Amino acid sequence: MNRGFSQCGSVLITGASRGLGLQMVKNLVKSNERPARVIATARNPAAAKELQDLAKDCSGLHIVTLDVVSQESIDTAVQEVTSLVGEKGLNCLINNAAINISTDLETVNFEAMMKTFESNAVSPLMVTKAFLPLLRSAAQQGSGMGIHRATVVNISSVLGSIELNWGPGATFRSHAYRTSKAALNMVTRCLASDLRSDGILCMSLHPGWVRTDMGGPQADLDVEESIESVLSVIAGLSEKDQGEFRNYLGKSLPW
Amino acid sequence: MNRGFSQCGSVLITGASRGLGLQMVKNLVKSNERPARVIATARNPAAAKELQDLAKDCSGLHIVTLDVVSQESIDTAVQEVTSLVGEKGLNCLINNAAINISTDLETVNFEAMMKTFESNAVSPLMVTKAFLPLLRSAAQQGSGMGIHRATVVNISSVLGSIELNWGPGATFRSHAYRTSKAALNMVTRCLASDLRSDGILCMSLHPGWVRTDMGGPQADLDVEESIESVLSVIAGLSEKDQGEFRNYLGKSLPW
Repeated sequence: MNRGFSQCGSVLITGASRGLGLQMVKNLVKSNERPARVIATARNPAAAKELQDLAKDCSGLHIVTLDVVSQESIDTAVQEVTSLVGEKGLNCLINNAAINISTDLETVNFEAMMKTFESNAVSPLMVTKAFLPLLRSAAQQGSGMGIHRATVVNISSVLGSIELNWGPGATFRSHAYRTSKAALNMVTRCLASDLRSDGILCMSLHPGWVRTDMGGPQADLDVEESIESVLSVIAGLSEKDQGEFRNYLGKSLPW
Repeated sequence: MNRGFSQCGSVLITGASRGLGLQMVKNLVKSNERPARVIATARNPAAAKELQDLAKDCSGLHIVTLDVVSQESIDTAVQEVTSLVGEKGLNCLINNAAINISTDLETVNFEAMMKTFESNAVSPLMVTKAFLPLLRSAAQQGSGMGIHRATVVNISSVLGSIELNWGPGATFRSHAYRTSKAALNMVTRCLASDLRSDGILCMSLHPGWVRTDMGGPQADLDVEESIESVLSVIAGLSEKDQGEFRNYLGKSLPW
């Protein structure tokens, strides 16, 4: 796995204190074909004990404070990352941080909808926008498309597929979460159009239904299985994936 | 046109002070096959002169104050509409109120994204939820599906199609608007699953690109052309339209 990360100078993962984000960091730093730098961000790194322990024994793993819903925090993180990566820029941004407020028709309200949308759809857009100078620096130093050059991966969900939210696919009711991930898919598509001419790849990726704090104990996949596949798909991304929505096996999903 | 509105006891249209909403009211009240009651809502009816003038000469047209982003205003409007329609309930809710904050990658920010999402995606959900007791009353008095029974129409946009936001379809850049309408389409789909067993139809409708204040002067259709078609599609809605996304000619659009 991680075939291609040796060609990738730097990866930044948001929401890396636990769950899928933490597992991405673990797999990347232990891989034989690891990227030179892994930048793991968390809202509150002081509370992210496992991530801190990992960073102690590991060169090239940097922990950066980033609260993705704060423009001020985003701007500070960009400064810090700029001083880490320098002129090489940032090769791969993985927008993984997300929340899930469980809501059905009875319980959904303005606040749950707005808060979930802010974290899961607006933040990935604003984080990507803020890191564009670093992504563009990296893109100017490569050709083709993929993580060897400059790539934005938005961690989405099959629950954000409007098409698949029907019949048996509609069993899991979560207005706020589903709506935020459909919105994120539109963000991906807008960014893919905006950034194509810069040579920056942008796509949405469904990591599977995973046994994390968010996914719950009855989910299909364990977190290692999911992330091994997710990183393999990310490593293999190319021009054909621009603006696409794929699952952890690389299979295309309907919008 | 409006073949079926004579079978429809009551229609409520949000954002009816101007543009598409106002035209819907005009066409409905002048039609030979008009619904018994047309309830036109506006955030500030005192400023909606054309709507006020129309109501003077017209029985069965009621103006109700409704600021769709305020839960308090929604709750007050529901009380007022309940006293108008009584036990017959509400047969057709048209969530038309929307805003467009023009944003491209350079100008988009948290505020524009959040405000547009609130008006265009969350409000239709919260308005529908608040009117559910009246929609359910109406649904209990009919069979089949459509505006003779109980129907929710969300006025969406082809700009909310994630699939079509590509190549020439991506020329119009508007992150906030596009994202809000993709989110609205997911809201439609969630509601359609939630409400099917109650006999309440729910679908998304693209009115065309129309020469309104929002659409601008270079748009394809004039507002009368659009609304004549839109009302004809709404009048003909049935079971097959549940959870679907159609344009003003009734043609299916991809998500």
